[in-house]
Amino acid sequence: MASKEVEITSWFAAQSNLVKTDYPIGIGDDMAQIQLANGTSVLITTDMLLEGTHFELSKATIEQVGYKAMAVNLSDCAAMATLPIGAVASVGLPKGWGVEELKRLHEGMTSVGNRFECPLIGGDITKWSHTAPGLSISISMLSRPASCAPVRRSGARVGDYICVTGRLGGSILGRHLSFVPRVAEAIAMRQIAKINAMIDISDGISSDLGHICRLSRVGARVEEAAIPISDDARRQPDALAAALNDGEDFELLFTLAPAEWKKLSGRWQMETPLTRIGEITPAGRIELVAADGKTKEMRAEGYDHLAT
Amino acid sequence: MASKEVEITSWFAAQSNLVKTDYPIGIGDDMAQIQLANGTSVLITTDMLLEGTHFELSKATIEQVGYKAMAVNLSDCAAMATLPIGAVASVGLPKGWGVEELKRLHEGMTSVGNRFECPLIGGDITKWSHTAPGLSISISMLSRPASCAPVRRSGARVGDYICVTGRLGGSILGRHLSFVPRVAEAIAMRQIAKINAMIDISDGISSDLGHICRLSRVGARVEEAAIPISDDARRQPDALAAALNDGEDFELLFTLAPAEWKKLSGRWQMETPLTRIGEITPAGRIELVAADGKTKEMRAEGYDHLAT
Repeated sequence: MASKEVEITSWFAAQSNLVKTDYPIGIGDDMAQIQLANGTSVLITTDMLLEGTHFELSKATIEQVGYKAMAVNLSDCAAMATLPIGAVASVGLPKGWGVEELKRLHEGMTSVGNRFECPLIGGDITKWSHTAPGLSISISMLSRPASCAPVRRSGARVGDYICVTGRLGGSILGRHLSFVPRVAEAIAMRQIAKINAMIDISDGISSDLGHICRLSRVGARVEEAAIPISDDARRQPDALAAALNDGEDFELLFTLAPAEWKKLSGRWQMETPLTRIGEITPAGRIELVAADGKTKEMRAEGYDHLAT
Repeated sequence: MASKEVEITSWFAAQSNLVKTDYPIGIGDDMAQIQLANGTSVLITTDMLLEGTHFELSKATIEQVGYKAMAVNLSDCAAMATLPIGAVASVGLPKGWGVEELKRLHEGMTSVGNRFECPLIGGDITKWSHTAPGLSISISMLSRPASCAPVRRSGARVGDYICVTGRLGGSILGRHLSFVPRVAEAIAMRQIAKINAMIDISDGISSDLGHICRLSRVGARVEEAAIPISDDARRQPDALAAALNDGEDFELLFTLAPAEWKKLSGRWQMETPLTRIGEITPAGRIELVAADGKTKEMRAEGYDHLAT
């Protein structure tokens, strides 16, 4: 999400005027949280995928599209270190689609949903009345807090280390259709250490670190040489730019105190690598430090749906 | 929802294999219910509106489209006599749409959301990458049980009276964009009387009464002369057919024991009329009794998104 989306999202958030006790987390984070009776709360997220924008049916199977639609929502649950508990899906079908295609979409959705104990519990089936439009899928997912409070985007503190899971960039070569949402990693991380802020990388760290900094009112310094670059990114003309800006990595970007990082990296046993890439600073800008020590501002180059 | 949609929805429900204690209500009702900790539960529904199928931007303002997208979900909350507590919206924008159009959509959504204390708490903004497709909007809404358990589609009993709120048919003349979801009526009804089964009329009573009967394993007899026909339906070539099949009335169709109907109709003080239109029968068919006493089978003539 880049500038125009930030602008309108901030405007929506300002309009919403939610009572904090009933809605502890509102517009602008990876999920919103509603406080229910008896000290119980629930979180919700929603994501829409459009044919031509988020997938091409010439390059992806219908099952992969269903998988991705579910996985991007699971990634939001991971971004707050919460446990997914159920999802609903609404689909706008192209002309000519019917029961067979729906079953294949369902297969893709439930394959990844079941893996994270997140069943599909409802939905809505609609169809375009003309030929031109493509498939649109919207999934909304509920989660519940794990043993700790949900991790927000706004909790980064000056001096925190900035870290990421996995390796970044080049997901367009296929990983955007088959990535494993970091639900298990997020819960495991939170059990070992106190995470101050977290987001999933959907628009590239140049944009997503910007969200953490803006909402936490801090700056950041990222070491170019520390960025874990994926093999797919290395196949791009500019591997570093791919790792910073490509988006759809759906890895986790998080910040935590140095002592907590020591604990986390010392006790980490999962296969997914964790990498420290920088540090939270007081300044309101995000700096990228090159291998030669030169510093430049890191600008959000991620995809902006509202850019003209 | 008519036959092909029923078929695939039943298939999805059979696949889902939900544990009743965790998911008291699954696929196939107006909302699904998740049981959380400490005796607390939450319900969720989702509805997608597509340009050309559910609205025409040549005939509706953007605010009306936003209003309808929110109102159809509120109607699902009403159908179970539950209290809406929050919604998330995802939108697929046509090329050329930006901040101004989003603010107008938001205005429409929140105007009806606020009326029922249901804030918009999150969302996702995406954009079609080519010109042809139209606007798609998906809203998912959460509700909580009122003082009683949610009213399901499956609870109708032989001997129950079949009743509706409001007047039916011809909503295409404009009411489908401006209807008031029957949230307040549902809660008030449930406070006065025990409602055994309920659904909102989105596809016409010929289809929606079919859902109640199928899921309750009962039949029904409806008196043609008792159907409350709207003024808009009277402007259609066949007023009765319009009232039975048009859909998008978003009135409530419900069944209750005769003694409960006596209580309800005796104490009802809201402006929205309640009308008894028939009776639940043991037979697995739905009969329509004409003014001259002749009986014929009432077939589901509502819109089927999966019909070829």
